[in-house]
Amino acid sequence: MNKLTFDISISLDGFCAGPDQSLEDPLGKGGRRLHEWTAATRAWRESHGLDGGETGADSELVASSIADTGATIMGRRMFSGGTGPWESDPNANGWWGETPPFHHPVFVLTHHEREPLEMQGGTTFTFVTNGIESALAQARAAAGEKDIRIGGGGSVVQQYLAAGHVDEMTVHIAPVLLGGGTRLFSDELERLVEIEMVQISESPTGVIHTLYRVAR
Amino acid sequence: MNKLTFDISISLDGFCAGPDQSLEDPLGKGGRRLHEWTAATRAWRESHGLDGGETGADSELVASSIADTGATIMGRRMFSGGTGPWESDPNANGWWGETPPFHHPVFVLTHHEREPLEMQGGTTFTFVTNGIESALAQARAAAGEKDIRIGGGGSVVQQYLAAGHVDEMTVHIAPVLLGGGTRLFSDELERLVEIEMVQISESPTGVIHTLYRVAR
Repeated sequence: MNKLTFDISISLDGFCAGPDQSLEDPLGKGGRRLHEWTAATRAWRESHGLDGGETGADSELVASSIADTGATIMGRRMFSGGTGPWESDPNANGWWGETPPFHHPVFVLTHHEREPLEMQGGTTFTFVTNGIESALAQARAAAGEKDIRIGGGGSVVQQYLAAGHVDEMTVHIAPVLLGGGTRLFSDELERLVEIEMVQISESPTGVIHTLYRVAR
Repeated sequence: MNKLTFDISISLDGFCAGPDQSLEDPLGKGGRRLHEWTAATRAWRESHGLDGGETGADSELVASSIADTGATIMGRRMFSGGTGPWESDPNANGWWGETPPFHHPVFVLTHHEREPLEMQGGTTFTFVTNGIESALAQARAAAGEKDIRIGGGGSVVQQYLAAGHVDEMTVHIAPVLLGGGTRLFSDELERLVEIEMVQISESPTGVIHTLYRVAR
């Protein structure tokens, strides 16, 4: 069966977005620092329709993560860009532009029913109003042999972790303390989850790339 | 000048102690898991007056941390063992036994004035009631050429980080999600701290050993 994973960058103090998030600054203060390493890679730039970028181990890591992923699940705020346009207009197209970087089916957890949204470049947003189990079943079917990735945010990751559905997690630890913001791992899991370290590697940028398997 | 450091084990989700801490279980649920790798080493066992233990890279890391440290600063709860005997008797000797594992001067941040406590094996507890700057100055003088280590807990680490006094941090990331408890890095730092990764290594136990320098 295909795997449920996530692949998220955090600060050493555990934040996946900084404090003072706003429409203009959805990643919060210092939040861009977490993604600098990815944004510099050729593989990431290519998926975003951009030229150039660095090749090397970081780019290969991003390329392999992109290649392995057949469907993405995300929360409503990640679709709309934090406190973005969706807050005032639930039919807005989110902040991913005309050609979102996913190029595969994306399932958005929301309370607002809405028709699927087919974008350019192979991304379709499907809005799921009946819970995380339903989103996972739909994503599993859509992903085929590939993995399903939880895009975020942190609360969506928590829900799938708490329900015991996550198979693997890729966590990139960036060399910065953001001092506040949104945590990837909250205090609300309320149970111990056994994990096994599968591999670590070090980026020239000082980011630690980790891959853990959730023990069964 | 000698360096102010800390050397603390956390879970991947950032906790340095688990939930449900009590006098009987000061590390909280699952908290022992963070220290299994240290407790297995010959160097740690030796500092605790115990025979045996594993040699190898983990033990060398512990030995070098012990050798480099000339003084320790800790909070009152770390001295007394969480909700330990000091809560009811401020003159109790804490939970470190007759021969504490430090073997050097220890400065305890507290609001209760008290005469220094000289233990066996070279550990003296000095109680500091006039703040973190005073404790640091006293520890610096006592440490000589060696480093000063913040023993914990998390809130003491935060205070020294916020004040900009920390030079280096050693963080060991254990392969477990505790799901709750006490965080090493809280949400209260309220400013971004630039850090540089100095080195990482991987323990056979799946723990990631990291060393960061705080950028100036």
